[in-house]
Amino acid sequence: MSSTTAPASGQPRPQPAAMYAATGLDVWTMMNQAAASVGAVNLGQGYMSFPPKDFIKRAAQEALADGVQHQYAPPRGRPRLLDEVAARFSGLLGRPIDPASEISVHAGANEALLSAFCAFLEPGKGQEAVLIEPAFDQYTPNVAMAGGTPVYVPLRVRTSKDPAREVISSDDWKLDPAELEAAITSKTRILVLNTPHNPVGKVFTRAELEEIGAIATRHNLLVIADEVYEHLTYGAEHVSIATLPGMWERTITVGSAGKLLGVTGWRVGWAVGPRELIQPTLAAHTRIVFTANTPLQEGVASALSAARDNGFVAVQRAEYQARRNRLMAIFDDVGLPYVAPDGAYYILANAGAVRIPDDYEFPPFIEERGRNFKLAYYFTKEFGVSGIPPAEFYSPAHKDIAGDYIRFAFCKTDEGLDECAQRLQKLKAHLQEARAVPF
Amino acid sequence: MSSTTAPASGQPRPQPAAMYAATGLDVWTMMNQAAASVGAVNLGQGYMSFPPKDFIKRAAQEALADGVQHQYAPPRGRPRLLDEVAARFSGLLGRPIDPASEISVHAGANEALLSAFCAFLEPGKGQEAVLIEPAFDQYTPNVAMAGGTPVYVPLRVRTSKDPAREVISSDDWKLDPAELEAAITSKTRILVLNTPHNPVGKVFTRAELEEIGAIATRHNLLVIADEVYEHLTYGAEHVSIATLPGMWERTITVGSAGKLLGVTGWRVGWAVGPRELIQPTLAAHTRIVFTANTPLQEGVASALSAARDNGFVAVQRAEYQARRNRLMAIFDDVGLPYVAPDGAYYILANAGAVRIPDDYEFPPFIEERGRNFKLAYYFTKEFGVSGIPPAEFYSPAHKDIAGDYIRFAFCKTDEGLDECAQRLQKLKAHLQEARAVPF
Repeated sequence: MSSTTAPASGQPRPQPAAMYAATGLDVWTMMNQAAASVGAVNLGQGYMSFPPKDFIKRAAQEALADGVQHQYAPPRGRPRLLDEVAARFSGLLGRPIDPASEISVHAGANEALLSAFCAFLEPGKGQEAVLIEPAFDQYTPNVAMAGGTPVYVPLRVRTSKDPAREVISSDDWKLDPAELEAAITSKTRILVLNTPHNPVGKVFTRAELEEIGAIATRHNLLVIADEVYEHLTYGAEHVSIATLPGMWERTITVGSAGKLLGVTGWRVGWAVGPRELIQPTLAAHTRIVFTANTPLQEGVASALSAARDNGFVAVQRAEYQARRNRLMAIFDDVGLPYVAPDGAYYILANAGAVRIPDDYEFPPFIEERGRNFKLAYYFTKEFGVSGIPPAEFYSPAHKDIAGDYIRFAFCKTDEGLDECAQRLQKLKAHLQEARAVPF
Repeated sequence: MSSTTAPASGQPRPQPAAMYAATGLDVWTMMNQAAASVGAVNLGQGYMSFPPKDFIKRAAQEALADGVQHQYAPPRGRPRLLDEVAARFSGLLGRPIDPASEISVHAGANEALLSAFCAFLEPGKGQEAVLIEPAFDQYTPNVAMAGGTPVYVPLRVRTSKDPAREVISSDDWKLDPAELEAAITSKTRILVLNTPHNPVGKVFTRAELEEIGAIATRHNLLVIADEVYEHLTYGAEHVSIATLPGMWERTITVGSAGKLLGVTGWRVGWAVGPRELIQPTLAAHTRIVFTANTPLQEGVASALSAARDNGFVAVQRAEYQARRNRLMAIFDDVGLPYVAPDGAYYILANAGAVRIPDDYEFPPFIEERGRNFKLAYYFTKEFGVSGIPPAEFYSPAHKDIAGDYIRFAFCKTDEGLDECAQRLQKLKAHLQEARAVPF
């Protein structure tokens, strides 16, 4: 053995890049641990606590029974899945979608978003992507990984009601077009639009999308439309911005089999758009993961095919609407105001009336992250229901907008939601007491 | 409808980043199309043309039967899979591997490599990664995506034999330590080492690894050890560089369930190393895809568990050795010299004696890519067996090293290889004729 291969202790070690050097907990782990520590009902992360429908599980099992569907898929995706996505999006977007050139299949919608950022941001040029806050927590790092700079424009609550005392609508959260346009510079290349919106539940109206589309067109922006919750609206009409005149040509619409079929762990998503936008997105995808997994692509294809016949999407929407209504009724009962969502599967509750004792002890990783994290942590520990602090979805300058809110996911079993109702009786008493005492 | 949303024709469009703007065919599509056009036996891409063993398919089907294994896995991986990978690598690396801190599960080994590059290259600093050529075609773009610069050091053929007329050994391909060290600068951060090697089939010896390890240590490099073929060696001993004294601390070892279990489409891989190296790799992975798919992680866990009892890895190795021997015998019979591989599942054949008529017509996308692509294309079209031009695995300065070679994959059925023997009778006649005529 050559002695040169045996380093002295204190040998220098490879050092990580700054972006990945942090050893702290991420918000999901942090809140999952807090929930577990008190056996809280976990309404934090947005995954389903109920099993997928049998026909969906069966579709994947049948795909696995085949001997040849275990090897690399073409990077663009398995042909049967491309055909099924084309069929669905031809309907959603009101135009024939070419499966051979206008779709790419990804390892989850997240990887579709990263691929699109990589494909349309030139590293080292200071190019910018505008994110509307609250912004899904992967957007910011994904823009940075692509060599771009995120710029933030927050939704603003516009209502005569008092959100700390009254239920407001997700439609009360407004994007100010003047504020959006003021954020755009000669370096802006991308605008990310999430509708239905996580965590607000806002479903952007056609009139709002027209204003946004006009601005995107005026500044020659690519619109990345994150529409992974397009199938979950409760009365409001989901409009894809790609359907507006002139917008198809500059829009990549991103969808998710995980969200559509209730199988977030399958990691199959897609991007849909004109050939000129999908080709570079596919090229980036090919370098990022090469291809999405084959058996579950086939399973998704079969499940989408079956869903066209069995009415699954409408049934699922009704089930989620019932879950939403159940959680809203629980919040109504205990006097916790919230933002009634028009879409997606989250409710932002306004916990501003919760009184945290001055001497309450927080672990350092919560203490250092400010008021909104402390509120979510305290809520979890004291009232036994855990959610996510939406401050995680804001840039530092705008975190205060979310200060009083906690995001709760309602993609959960009836039993889980009923248990939540029981736990929150303690909150009911707390809020009655807090509101009886003047500020 | 606001008129401002309707762009005039000739409206400017979003432009892709330079790296993803090319609209040409990739090598895999190119050669697959050439193969299909003449019904060639396709020994190009390295996926299995035979089904996985029943116990492997069943493992995944059983995972899908469960109601709860359809949602997000922890980004690090499903606990059962982490335990199984820890068990396997504790043996391979001769040290106890901690599943909670020394492993991350990825959406394929490719995504593990990208995660490691992102985690250890600081963008915008001109940091360099040394790649040994021929280099798997994803390394170069993955280094670039992480903001680094690839630097190339080729293996050199060192033998007294004439590789155009005689069979040589993969061990005749040597890395010159002086050439490697001369390529290292103050900006070098990473050395990528692939053993067993695709496409050469070289299994680096302990002595070679000691020299490489000493250089990596001297220059404080991270070693990314791509060992996805560790289970496929034919007589030679696979040595993990992480087992050499002092090397564990600076090595990330990458493996692949797709390669280990013969299911390249499942997209499950892993990275193994010390906590200080895995934590940033996991952080990058979390941003790239968030998590690998859950059902097939569970399937891999069950299959690895069963494989420990049923001797699968040894059986599979014997099967691949038989396939290797079969393809070598075919080449021997027709007089096509090659590099006899000690590992992996590729054979580099030396087609330098093939005579391409001066007036042979190539499509432009082949013509423009030079001699090695023309050779692979001509071989496919004229002799009915398709392979990959290894020039794709070289930087422009070194492409000539591969000029006479074609890579053939032998992870194929006996019937496919027998068919190959039939087709190559035409080559046999061609080579006899070509060799009878002096240059």
